[in-house]
Amino acid sequence: MLRLHHYRLCPLSRTARMLLAELKLEFALEEERPWEWRPQFAAINPAGELPVLIDEAREAVRVCGSYAVLEHLADAHPRGPVLAQDPVDRAEIRRLVDWFHGKCLRDVTSPLLESKVYERFRSAAAGGGAPDPEQQRSMRANLRYHLRYLDHIAEQRNWLAGSELSAADFAAAAHISVLDYLGEISWEDAVHARTWYARMKSRPAMRAVLADRVPGAASPPAHYADPDF
Amino acid sequence: MLRLHHYRLCPLSRTARMLLAELKLEFALEEERPWEWRPQFAAINPAGELPVLIDEAREAVRVCGSYAVLEHLADAHPRGPVLAQDPVDRAEIRRLVDWFHGKCLRDVTSPLLESKVYERFRSAAAGGGAPDPEQQRSMRANLRYHLRYLDHIAEQRNWLAGSELSAADFAAAAHISVLDYLGEISWEDAVHARTWYARMKSRPAMRAVLADRVPGAASPPAHYADPDF
Repeated sequence: MLRLHHYRLCPLSRTARMLLAELKLEFALEEERPWEWRPQFAAINPAGELPVLIDEAREAVRVCGSYAVLEHLADAHPRGPVLAQDPVDRAEIRRLVDWFHGKCLRDVTSPLLESKVYERFRSAAAGGGAPDPEQQRSMRANLRYHLRYLDHIAEQRNWLAGSELSAADFAAAAHISVLDYLGEISWEDAVHARTWYARMKSRPAMRAVLADRVPGAASPPAHYADPDF
Repeated sequence: MLRLHHYRLCPLSRTARMLLAELKLEFALEEERPWEWRPQFAAINPAGELPVLIDEAREAVRVCGSYAVLEHLADAHPRGPVLAQDPVDRAEIRRLVDWFHGKCLRDVTSPLLESKVYERFRSAAAGGGAPDPEQQRSMRANLRYHLRYLDHIAEQRNWLAGSELSAADFAAAAHISVLDYLGEISWEDAVHARTWYARMKSRPAMRAVLADRVPGAASPPAHYADPDF
């Protein structure tokens, strides 16, 4: 049995969940709250980062972090929808995964999650408090830029990295789904991204992710889980 | 012919240079100054990130970013010293690459490079200025933590990810070499890391990297390029 340590609104965890579901692998979820920094979790992944994939049938297989998990799944399922076969296509998929898990995470998703969710659950002593309006403005400017880029590639291609569905689509959908949950996306400005995201939302692999809610935080907008939006 | 867009003190670029040299591939270097944000470079890699590897024999092969370059080299040279064959070893190598290129970059190398090198070359109008002493203290505390972790794994293993040399060693050596260039490493506190790094410095693949200097910035300490230090 596979076990995935994840957090329901962590975009890196969501990518792993969707890839596992798309590959039709059975897996159990174990939730880890990133703002708690539990020593028990640091013993599993010293970096303290999600996701971690554990193959319980083979105790030694402990795959730590989004990069290792994605490539591990691609290695194990070379004909699956994670990576392509051709080196040029593989490079393009990895460039886009890195765009979302690197640049978009750093510029937008991580600071918005921090300020709108994690800080809420953290005690005031540990750094909880009201979001900085200047920082929020800057994150939203970054988000508009990322949404324009997504819209640009969605206009030109069938799937984000080219003609085939790949990890690039799941990585992008993971970030978009978190930002949409937080009510941060203005869909009227991104018609091609919207059409692409509607196709992603209608995939069975996204169903469980879209059904998740965070008790104690604001609810997502009404269109959030609806493929026709 | 392969062409690598790099910057001489960028740890991600240094990792790629060392891997190319270790694989005995011929390549030309093209330097890109990260603080300049040239539109011509954004046309090559829209993320504006280094390194970018271009195979000029096959115009379409443009591999953008550290993650895609490393995995591209591993795909093309499956028996080379980038990744291992076994899934457990591959996961451990990738975990450690991510430790350095993700966590160590974010916590230490990137902010130190920014404040000690890039800001120096940037005009005052574009954000140049004196480093914040509070931020410097926090980066140095992070550096001590990363050096302790490196020392801990170097004590337990032959190479960082296990018995064989791998991309984990080159990624770690890239960050360490940049931090050592900047005079930030107290080697007396890290005897096992020092022994491991001495072995890395004596490899031909590190020679060109260690010979590089940055005109207009402070010189590295006397021991910097010396394998007996």
